[in-house]
Amino acid sequence: MGKGGEGGGDAGKAEENMAAWLVSVNTLKIQPFHLPPLGPHDVRVRMKAVGICGSDVHYLKTLRCAHFVVREPMVIGHECAGVVQEVGSEVKSLVSGDRVALEPGISCWRCKFCKGGRYNLCPDMKFFATPPVHGSLANQVVHPADLCFKLPDNVSLEEGAMCEPLSVGIHACRRANVGPETTVLIMGAGPIGLVTMLAARAFGAPRIVIVDVDGYRLSVAKSLGADEFVKVSTSTQDLDEEVLEIQKAMGSDIDVSFDCAGFSKTMSTALNATRPGGKVCLVGMGHNEMTVPLTPAAAREVDVVGIFRYKDTWPLCIEFLRSGKIDVKPLITHRFGFSQEEVVEAFEVSARGGDAIKVMFNL
Amino acid sequence: MGKGGEGGGDAGKAEENMAAWLVSVNTLKIQPFHLPPLGPHDVRVRMKAVGICGSDVHYLKTLRCAHFVVREPMVIGHECAGVVQEVGSEVKSLVSGDRVALEPGISCWRCKFCKGGRYNLCPDMKFFATPPVHGSLANQVVHPADLCFKLPDNVSLEEGAMCEPLSVGIHACRRANVGPETTVLIMGAGPIGLVTMLAARAFGAPRIVIVDVDGYRLSVAKSLGADEFVKVSTSTQDLDEEVLEIQKAMGSDIDVSFDCAGFSKTMSTALNATRPGGKVCLVGMGHNEMTVPLTPAAAREVDVVGIFRYKDTWPLCIEFLRSGKIDVKPLITHRFGFSQEEVVEAFEVSARGGDAIKVMFNL
Amino acid sequence: MGKGGEGGGDAGKAEENMAAWLVSVNTLKIQPFHLPPLGPHDVRVRMKAVGICGSDVHYLKTLRCAHFVVREPMVIGHECAGVVQEVGSEVKSLVSGDRVALEPGISCWRCKFCKGGRYNLCPDMKFFATPPVHGSLANQVVHPADLCFKLPDNVSLEEGAMCEPLSVGIHACRRANVGPETTVLIMGAGPIGLVTMLAARAFGAPRIVIVDVDGYRLSVAKSLGADEFVKVSTSTQDLDEEVLEIQKAMGSDIDVSFDCAGFSKTMSTALNATRPGGKVCLVGMGHNEMTVPLTPAAAREVDVVGIFRYKDTWPLCIEFLRSGKIDVKPLITHRFGFSQEEVVEAFEVSARGGDAIKVMFNL
Amino acid sequence: MGKGGEGGGDAGKAEENMAAWLVSVNTLKIQPFHLPPLGPHDVRVRMKAVGICGSDVHYLKTLRCAHFVVREPMVIGHECAGVVQEVGSEVKSLVSGDRVALEPGISCWRCKFCKGGRYNLCPDMKFFATPPVHGSLANQVVHPADLCFKLPDNVSLEEGAMCEPLSVGIHACRRANVGPETTVLIMGAGPIGLVTMLAARAFGAPRIVIVDVDGYRLSVAKSLGADEFVKVSTSTQDLDEEVLEIQKAMGSDIDVSFDCAGFSKTMSTALNATRPGGKVCLVGMGHNEMTVPLTPAAAREVDVVGIFRYKDTWPLCIEFLRSGKIDVKPLITHRFGFSQEEVVEAFEVSARGGDAIKVMFNL
Repeated sequence: MGKGGEGGGDAGKAEENMAAWLVSVNTLKIQPFHLPPLGPHDVRVRMKAVGICGSDVHYLKTLRCAHFVVREPMVIGHECAGVVQEVGSEVKSLVSGDRVALEPGISCWRCKFCKGGRYNLCPDMKFFATPPVHGSLANQVVHPADLCFKLPDNVSLEEGAMCEPLSVGIHACRRANVGPETTVLIMGAGPIGLVTMLAARAFGAPRIVIVDVDGYRLSVAKSLGADEFVKVSTSTQDLDEEVLEIQKAMGSDIDVSFDCAGFSKTMSTALNATRPGGKVCLVGMGHNEMTVPLTPAAAREVDVVGIFRYKDTWPLCIEFLRSGKIDVKPLITHRFGFSQEEVVEAFEVSARGGDAIKVMFNL
Repeated sequence: MGKGGEGGGDAGKAEENMAAWLVSVNTLKIQPFHLPPLGPHDVRVRMKAVGICGSDVHYLKTLRCAHFVVREPMVIGHECAGVVQEVGSEVKSLVSGDRVALEPGISCWRCKFCKGGRYNLCPDMKFFATPPVHGSLANQVVHPADLCFKLPDNVSLEEGAMCEPLSVGIHACRRANVGPETTVLIMGAGPIGLVTMLAARAFGAPRIVIVDVDGYRLSVAKSLGADEFVKVSTSTQDLDEEVLEIQKAMGSDIDVSFDCAGFSKTMSTALNATRPGGKVCLVGMGHNEMTVPLTPAAAREVDVVGIFRYKDTWPLCIEFLRSGKIDVKPLITHRFGFSQEEVVEAFEVSARGGDAIKVMFNL
Repeated sequence: MGKGGEGGGDAGKAEENMAAWLVSVNTLKIQPFHLPPLGPHDVRVRMKAVGICGSDVHYLKTLRCAHFVVREPMVIGHECAGVVQEVGSEVKSLVSGDRVALEPGISCWRCKFCKGGRYNLCPDMKFFATPPVHGSLANQVVHPADLCFKLPDNVSLEEGAMCEPLSVGIHACRRANVGPETTVLIMGAGPIGLVTMLAARAFGAPRIVIVDVDGYRLSVAKSLGADEFVKVSTSTQDLDEEVLEIQKAMGSDIDVSFDCAGFSKTMSTALNATRPGGKVCLVGMGHNEMTVPLTPAAAREVDVVGIFRYKDTWPLCIEFLRSGKIDVKPLITHRFGFSQEEVVEAFEVSARGGDAIKVMFNL
Repeated sequence: MGKGGEGGGDAGKAEENMAAWLVSVNTLKIQPFHLPPLGPHDVRVRMKAVGICGSDVHYLKTLRCAHFVVREPMVIGHECAGVVQEVGSEVKSLVSGDRVALEPGISCWRCKFCKGGRYNLCPDMKFFATPPVHGSLANQVVHPADLCFKLPDNVSLEEGAMCEPLSVGIHACRRANVGPETTVLIMGAGPIGLVTMLAARAFGAPRIVIVDVDGYRLSVAKSLGADEFVKVSTSTQDLDEEVLEIQKAMGSDIDVSFDCAGFSKTMSTALNATRPGGKVCLVGMGHNEMTVPLTPAAAREVDVVGIFRYKDTWPLCIEFLRSGKIDVKPLITHRFGFSQEEVVEAFEVSARGGDAIKVMFNL
């Protein structure tokens, strides 16, 4: 497979730059997208692989996600990798032709969060496809060079695009301090549950049990490396019983639980199942308000930690992909080209879920 | 006040040892209490000051606290200080006559929690007045010497007994990492809210706002050092408004909130008021199950940390009392002797609350 | 003292901007200094107070400091505060007339150190008066607004300029994790030893012992708040004896030692005096190569931590000054105006040491 | 290989217990060793595998190690595993016949180090074969049950004995915070360098370069998993050049260096080679006093951390052995039985070094 040729067909700047615009509810249109001027520290990247994220689908269906609202037409997409076409005058880290994965958020570096080492909490973050900032499902984008990470030869552009969802799992594992002594419970075997599972394994977790209501998803999780899985119901009637079953499947104390679903039931299970002094990391965002046994958990010093996106994760993602400690390729279940029909269809496939884990565009 | 005479009236071992026994619901009786033999690493302590804790009252009223149940008559009391009467053959740290504050819990030192530095989570903890272990509202107790901490001359035995409730505040501040850069919100101006406030100040917190539904309690908190207070309602209708009012009272971001009440309303307020990347420490134990906006808090990386008692806090408590960084004397609002009637009355006063913050026995 | 008038005499941009240039060894000249254009995130500041640092003197005497070499004439000075004259188009945090203390280093925010929360280690740092970057002993400078910190009314501009040396002490205390349980030994009672002592106290250190060879310096340290001092010799003959004397002066284990001198003798003393599991923070930079008992220290798990400048310290400095937890005014022993003769004399006074702790220019 | 039969030949208590006594310089004698009574929390273990450590050899040759001195005849040996013969009345974690690895140190659990989570620093530690405490090169020993860790079926008793040296590497990696993002330099390819290398790999270190003066040792290190090795000289002349060569071999910044030799040269190399903000962990104990460039390292915030033995490492060692993340079997180069001649010969082989990495007794 000739990596050298991946970026070969580009016509450079001459090409009219097209992008997938979210113009109104349920309506995506491929339209011209005018690039901003290339700053001295920027690069211009020819997109080659862009994945669809749950938040993209959410914006498409509702024009909202969390407290963000789409008020003007916006280019969608933020999981991406491509080939550098042009570099700004001050850029020394990259040259034209480099294959890169893009970290989608540009923080201000002036606020206390940026200075304090938690730039993901920057209130002035400019993030691909978070309104009013345009996304990256486009032929080309202009982006700061320091947010474009060169891929090694043995990591494909599709894998590069997967750095974004994988970063969520990496950041969750870092915040929960997963290591070779940490037994891990994962509530939810959707895409986020799966990347968290892969990340936990790469951080050395010796034993991972995954829980879901869906048998198919659990079988996928097992094939991707879960040690054990437990199928549960959505009813809260059997909570205590299910907790015991989960603990038994683990075979030892549960040190860290990740709630990758985000409902009262899943969070209650996670809180009750985790050992004293352990951690529950809330990754999924099902319901805003939850009814959960927080007091008994607190009284066992089970901490609840949340995550917002990620920070400083691309180098580690790429290292995990390079070394083979993580293989994200099985997560890419569907591929589409970048035509009007295919874009519409791809989002439908992604929205349906089912056997679709990650839907990827090849541009 | 003659410190030298504090232990003077003791008749030593000859005295029949009496203790306050919880014999059934709402029934305390002063009865003989047979001491265990003095082990080589133990000391025998003549109790001089014993405070009443909310959990003592809870046991008296219901024979329960959290998941602990009193099934046999049990000596009550665990906030205590006294004078050493006899030391075991291997004890080198103390001599007879030393005035000491007692840490009430004896952990196993064989489990992974003890070895890992979190002995407060030891599943085999033997803790004063946590069934089936007897407490310390008695003339004398036998206790491991390493859990009896010598008081400096300028710290009274009553202050020594206050090390126990103060330890809760100290442990909460440590877990929430309070320091000279941490602005602090405290939900609840009861005894636990007040000791947490005193502890936060001693850890250097530059600004503390305290919140309660009771104006009298807030005025006490203000007189004890809160920078500002906010009176709120128990209704959840005005939550957003109250959060804004609290944030305005702080005048800057809230880094750490302590929920010293433990209800859905107080926890919701704490979660919503705390800045991104901050912490909410759940100290109070009002309701087991809470309905709270956990997902948006997690999505701002507001962590929830709980506490279970404390560990390794007595030396710091004593240092804070010695240096005057904390003054617990104003918290002691009522004093009683150790007669049958006074014991009964003291618990009634403590149970009524009102202007009673800490009720103390002088034995 | 009329704070309102502090910035009153400025003629604004019309004034020709003069600065103190280091033109060759031992030669400072006041000469015109052309300001760069005001960027959208910059402010123009009228300097009012600039202190002389040991490194300034070192550059003057040798044109070198550590591995930095002055190859072209350079404006000197980096401890400074002033009044904002003009703000860039995007600046929202400051307005003209604001009194500000300046953090002297501009980091790149693109390297892994900046992104990882340790921007002081940025290899592309542009730092006042570190060649080839010009300093701030000038009528006016242009600086990023996010590095200009507004002073409260009760903090003077001279105190604002002291934030820079104080930041060294703050950063050292943070890296050594000083808190209310940390007993502190300070080797060296020069300016750096004194700011470290003040910082350790503000972080809550309950007991501080300071050590020097000079009785006068020690008496100053005592008057500024040291609990005890020990006068030692420069000879290494009495090392063991001196360590015992220092430990006795502390009266308990030494948790953290700061070597604010940086010689084999002081570091050996610090390493040997510190308790198992403690820390020695090497702040002073006396000799590059040291002969020290590193192995026995390591075998007691005494960690050695160093510091490079500071990061994110101005807000805390200002808070400490505002609240009165730190009083830096007694450190300012000499004041000079901004004329050619006074600049020369001020550096001579600073270089002589003796009773000069901090020499300050009032511009 | 019949695990069931491993403990089969024991005659139980009837057997006279023999041990290898260090009776004077260079003199080991197998003599009767009277066991202490079995306490309620103790177990009696039939030793099956005991390794020779460098400190054992040191005691044999000099009767000293660090500041410990052998003043009375002492049973030697502390790297050991065996089969439980009898359990104390309170022991619930083990039964007779269990195969266990022994952690050799019994700490007091009363001092501040034990309570604070750093029991390895306990001043009252009783440690196998550290005078005046007897060791474990004996047919049987009595030891606390909580320091005897059950081995899984797929971990042999010899591997169990290797938990002790491996624990040094594990503890070093924990203190230096090695993880999947940490590039590692190891100075010294002796037994300690090798176990540190294996541990670093198991903690996820993506790239490890090892350095020694001996080509044979380096080839062993390479065969055990080092990514690269660099052969250096003992001369300090070429320090800068060698540092560059080492950095080049790493191919990226060096995050953590382990000095597993402990000489001025190795430590200087480690300090100079490590990136700003990195760590140097001093594991080896070559010379007490070192002449090293400590100031420039501190000024790059390169921290120096030391280790003393280990704490709480056996469960992780056993997990690494069980999962195959670490294979210690290739380290066991020589095996001996437990006769007078073989004991003498085994220590000679171990003392000679050369191709002997770990010398093991099978009892």
